[in-house]
Formats: sequence, C-alpha cells, structure tokens
Amino acid sequence: MPKIVVKKFGGTSVGDTSRIQKVAELIANYKDKNPDTAIIAVVSAMAGETNRLIALAKSAVAIPQRRELDVLITTGEQQTCALLAMCLKEKGVEARSLLAGQAHITTDSNFTNATIEGIDTCSLTELVDQNIIPVVAGFQGVDCRGNLTTLGRGGSDITAVALAAALSADACYIYTDVDGVYSSDPRICKSARRFKQLCHEEMLEMASLGAKVLHPRSVYFAMRYKVKLAVLSTFNPETGATWIVSEDELMEKPIISGITYRNDEAQINVSEISDANSLLSKLFTSMEERRIFVDMISHLQTTQEKDAISFTVPEESLEYALEMVKKVIESDKKISIYSDSDVSKISVVGIGMRYHTGVAAKIFRVLETEKIPILLIGTSEIKISLLVPRKYSELAVRVLHQTFIEEQPEIKQET
Amino acid sequence: MPKIVVKKFGGTSVGDTSRIQKVAELIANYKDKNPDTAIIAVVSAMAGETNRLIALAKSAVAIPQRRELDVLITTGEQQTCALLAMCLKEKGVEARSLLAGQAHITTDSNFTNATIEGIDTCSLTELVDQNIIPVVAGFQGVDCRGNLTTLGRGGSDITAVALAAALSADACYIYTDVDGVYSSDPRICKSARRFKQLCHEEMLEMASLGAKVLHPRSVYFAMRYKVKLAVLSTFNPETGATWIVSEDELMEKPIISGITYRNDEAQINVSEISDANSLLSKLFTSMEERRIFVDMISHLQTTQEKDAISFTVPEESLEYALEMVKKVIESDKKISIYSDSDVSKISVVGIGMRYHTGVAAKIFRVLETEKIPILLIGTSEIKISLLVPRKYSELAVRVLHQTFIEEQPEIKQET
Repeated sequence: MPKIVVKKFGGTSVGDTSRIQKVAELIANYKDKNPDTAIIAVVSAMAGETNRLIALAKSAVAIPQRRELDVLITTGEQQTCALLAMCLKEKGVEARSLLAGQAHITTDSNFTNATIEGIDTCSLTELVDQNIIPVVAGFQGVDCRGNLTTLGRGGSDITAVALAAALSADACYIYTDVDGVYSSDPRICKSARRFKQLCHEEMLEMASLGAKVLHPRSVYFAMRYKVKLAVLSTFNPETGATWIVSEDELMEKPIISGITYRNDEAQINVSEISDANSLLSKLFTSMEERRIFVDMISHLQTTQEKDAISFTVPEESLEYALEMVKKVIESDKKISIYSDSDVSKISVVGIGMRYHTGVAAKIFRVLETEKIPILLIGTSEIKISLLVPRKYSELAVRVLHQTFIEEQPEIKQET
Repeated sequence: MPKIVVKKFGGTSVGDTSRIQKVAELIANYKDKNPDTAIIAVVSAMAGETNRLIALAKSAVAIPQRRELDVLITTGEQQTCALLAMCLKEKGVEARSLLAGQAHITTDSNFTNATIEGIDTCSLTELVDQNIIPVVAGFQGVDCRGNLTTLGRGGSDITAVALAAALSADACYIYTDVDGVYSSDPRICKSARRFKQLCHEEMLEMASLGAKVLHPRSVYFAMRYKVKLAVLSTFNPETGATWIVSEDELMEKPIISGITYRNDEAQINVSEISDANSLLSKLFTSMEERRIFVDMISHLQTTQEKDAISFTVPEESLEYALEMVKKVIESDKKISIYSDSDVSKISVVGIGMRYHTGVAAKIFRVLETEKIPILLIGTSEIKISLLVPRKYSELAVRVLHQTFIEEQPEIKQET
C-alpha cells in the first residue's frame, strides 16, 4: 500500500459549486506535489443543506421519524460527493464518489446518532490501487440490515477519522473555514496564538469546552486509534495547520495550552440540605433518566449538618431541571433553590498542568486582582474550569490568556 | 400473497410537503377502504428538483460525468420517499422508504439511461407480509457493482410498472396532474373525450405521438408484462381514471381512439437524386451514427430516373442533419435540398383501423375539404400520421376529432 492521507472538507468548504471547484483544485495540486501519496476525500453537505432538509421534514410532520430523517438528510453529503468527483474528473484527476454502503461503513441502528461498528476497506483500497481518488460521503453509514444511518453532530469528521484509522493513514486533514486551533477565541484575545501542535487529550478538552473546530467525538476517536489530525483552512492552506498528535509525539510542550469559554450553561444551587447523600443520589438519578447533562458539580458543607450543592446544566434544560429539583425536594420545605443562567464557564487547559503545581493558585490570584467572583470550580487532570458571572467572561479569558499563554515563550513545533 | 396494487405519484403530485401530506392521506384512505389490498407506493422527485440538480452539476462542470450525475440526481427521489414515509407514519399507517438497492432493483450500467435487468421482490414482500407499505424511490436502480443508476425519462413510471410486473400486481395506478388520457388535447378540442379504456398498443402510439401523460417506455413495459395501468388525478381521484389494459381485455372498442399532434419535428426534402438507394443507405447510416432520430420517411420517384426523398427529424437536430445531408451529397451538384421546420405531425390512432378500410380515404377527404395541404404521410398498423404546415395543426386536429371521435357513439367501458 502507498502512503495514504484522508482529507475532509466541511460544509463551508463545499458551500457552493465554485467552492467545490476550489476543493478539487486543492486536491489536484496536492496530488501533483505528492504523486506517491494516495488521497481519500471525505465531504460534508453543502453549508446549510442539512438544516434545510431537517426544516423540510418538520414542515411535513410534527416529529420526523428517525429512520426516515436519515434517509432524507444523507442526500446532502451524497450530492456533494457526486459534485466533487465530477469536478476532479474535469481536472483530469480520476475520482469516484462512494456512499456509506459502497464504502462499507457499518454502524449500529441508532438512527440520527449512530456509532460506526466497522469499515471494510476493500472498495477503498481497490480504488487506491487503480489510482482513483475515492470521494466518500461523510456523516452516513448503513446498519446490518442495509438501512441508512447518520452519525450525529460532527459526523463527517468522525467518518474521516474512522477511515484514516481503518486505512492506517499517515494523517487526516480536516479542512475548515479557520486555519487552526487557537489558544483562545481570537475575537476576544487579539493576542490568541495558533497552536502548531496539540496532543489529543488537550484537543479533547478544548473541543468539549467550546473550541468549535472539531467535535469531541472525532477527537476521541482519533486519540483512541492514534490518528494524526491536521486542522487547516481550505481557502488558505498555505498558512499552515494545527497538528493534533499523540502525547508521546509531542516534543516540547507549554504548561498551559489554551483558555476556552462557553456561555451556554446555567447554575443551580440547592442549600439547607439535611441529608445530602440521599438527595444527590435521587437528584442525579432523575437527571440521568431525563437525559439532562450535568457538567460541573460541587458539594459543600455550609453550616454544621446543613449541606449545599451546586451544579451546572445546559441553559436550555434549566427550566426542566428546576422542575425536577423541586419534585425531588418537595418533602423538605426548608431547602432553598437558587439558579442563575447569567454565567460563563472559563477553562484553563493543558497537559502540562499535571506536572506543575501552582496553576490553580495562579488562576485564583489573577481573578482576585481583577475582582472576578468565582461561582464554582471544577478540575480534571488537564484542566481547571471556573464558573464566573457572564459579564466577566471576556475579561477573565483575556487576563488568564495573558498570564498563561502570552507570558510563556512561544515554542515552535512543526510536524 | 394478498392482492397488491402499485401506486405511483409524479413530480407535481409530490411537489411540496403539503402535497406529500395529501398523497399520504390518499393512500391512508385507500387502505381504509381496501384493508385486504397491499399497497406499494412509488415516488418521483419533487417537481423541478431533478432539473435543479442537473443545473447544479452544470454549474460545477461543463460535461457532468454520467455515473456521478446519477449519484447526484437520485437524491431527488430519495428525499421524496423519506418524506412520504414520514407523512404516512404520522397518519398511523406503517410505511418504510426503500431506495433502489434496498428494493433490489438491478439495472445495466448504462448511467443516466439504464435498463432494469431484474427485481428481487424479497424485501418488498417481507414488508407487505408485515403490513408495512414500502415507499420506493422511483427512477433509480443499482448495477451489479453497486453503482447507482437512473432509468432516464419516464423512469419513475418504469419503476412502478416493473414492480407491478415483478409482484404480479392487480394494477398499477399512475397518479398525475391530469385525470386521464384524452382523445385529443382538450385545449384545442373542447369536445375531447377522456378514455375510459385503451389497450396498451393504442396508448403506446398515443404516448409516442405526443400525449404527455405516460412515457412510451413504461407503456411498452406494461404491454410486455400485461400490467393493467390506470392514469388518474392525485388531487381529484374521484373523477375516475383511464384504464390501459391488454387488447384481449377490451370488450368493445371504437375504431379510432384518438387524434394527437406534435410540433417539434422538421422536414427535409432531397430531390433530383439519380441513385436513391445508395443515397438512402449512406444518409441514414450517418444519421444513426450521429444519433439523429429520423421519424417519418418517404421516397418518391418524381420524374423518370430522378427520385426524391423526404423525412422528418427533431427540430433541434435540423441544422446538424442538414450539414450531414450536404456532406453526403456533395459529389452531386444537381441534387436540391429543401427544409421546413414550420410543420406539425398529426396522427390518427386506433387499434380498430386494421379491421376497417377507408380510414385513410376519410382522412384525406376531410383535409381536402378544409384545404389543409399534406406534406408527408406515414402509416403503421394502428396509426396514420400526416405532416401539415404548422398553421393548420389545430384545425386539422379539430376536424379529424370531429369526424372520427365525436361522430362515433361513445362507448361506455369500466374496469
């Protein structure tokens, strides 16, 4: 087998036929410069198409049945892969579109949110052997009965990473509308740095915490199968990429890799609890049953024998979650409930943190200097997250970025 | 197996989601009234969608590659079948969308114009046994290598008729935007009659000659496999249908069934030919090689030893055909060429003609009375076609309709 790379193009990159022509040009140029490397292309639906199709379904029925919704929305990627294959052939590059069934991407039958169970690479390697570029429809699969399925949010990235894993590809390039992963949101931090390199774990935290470039599921997949990812711009590929590699491939690394934030969580505080353990158990069982995703959780003993708990839920689930809390505690009238959706979660991320003490202390000092109140703290091995009032979110990101990123020497890393 | 009917809905019938809801209602009502009859639904793309997709391909490349064009345009029917299945389920009718591969419709690999080679009805009958309505995407197939194909013009009708044949269905209902087949164009002949019944051969002539309701390929298919067809309106199904049945099922039949016309042919006359046989052979060989479809052909000896030939080609091919004629005759400067695109072809169709002499004579008398010149005559077993100057086409249709249809007693036929 020759060297193989997977190149995935997102919705904005294939947003109309002139952009699809540009993508074909990019692939043709790459092939010219790398004649011995086999390319597998993976495409998303044209930007907006999937949402248009979902709206179409909702104009037909109140609740679109999930199997049929998948039959409907897979047409988006099907159209793009046909168009890209046409454009490649017009440029004299042999290419062939492959739908999920033709690429033998098998999933479970969990329609609209399926999981890949296996990929038989026979048809892909057959095309590669004939020097034909397979152009694979992302986001879709087939179950064991031949039903069409889709992989849910971030699905096309998952297709790309899964193909790269199955083919032991050298790298999986994720072409998008930004030119990499930044240490923070460049709109807030003018001095945000683009990473040359991150390890999967860091990217996973960054992705989960609000960096919108890659869906955490695909990063997780890449980590599990040691797929080397590159995030880069379709329209300015020459500006370089952020490489996401296994930790052991990182040569040098800064302690803190990035500062992220998200504004879509809400906080619930429950205090004056006399039997905290029982309440916690009841409460989170109900939450799980109703599929309310609880993120940060904190439990404090406020006064002797009286406990308080505080946790965050997605802002959109706040009302539903509050109703449930009230139901669970209805027997105990003394318990008080307080909620706040005007909050932001700021996270400081970095593999290096586990080897360095004092990061938390430094965070608290910086925030205290700026008089930014901390509502809740959560820690993991490679991140510290802080809930702060939303009005302070930009300030907090900026000062933390200044402290942890800008005051560190930039470390040049190229792969 | 229970009694089976196939119901096919054309592009206008499924033109938007509110119309798809109406189609679901129609199917649900039919099922209510006929609980023991299994229904197979077949759908076209929403009106305009296939053309939109072809335009999309042409905006991407000069000449869309045919395999990829099929991948692109099959998404139209895929979307409709998913939406119809959703709407049926919302009405409490169990249904499931099936794409060509899922319905095991196998074709040759002649992309954009494939021919059905076989249908394995296993998945259809399995659904029927479970009282689930299969909603099949029309127009598409898969070849033996799993490539998507399309059946060309009239493809959804062909899918419907082929399924009806494969399942030995009792009937195949073609729902469209008109309520049947008429003895002539109702816009020209106010007194045009809707047929209660036609035989396949008559419908085949009607279809080939310009009645736009059914594509001749599907009628031919129905004839070959003795599939009983009904043409009826989706939006006014209660107005009844035109039934198209085998000739031996027709109980009584009028001599002439209809008068049709088409305005898209052009005439070429070549005269002063000394070696007609050699010229005819050369000329029509070139025509075939260049895929110019010649319709009517006439050969006359005008003066002793000098011949003339006259034939019609599609108006859009006229210039190309003329160039070719000039090339073929370039050695013989005496030959003269004349062409006219301002012509109409009027046809008088009827199975009964073969048992009745005098039809041709009656036609000529009628046209002579109205002083309509006849430019060319063509006959077959069940039709007589006449080329006339285009300005007379409506008059010719009216007077022939009056003579052959209105002056005959209407024969009531119901199936």
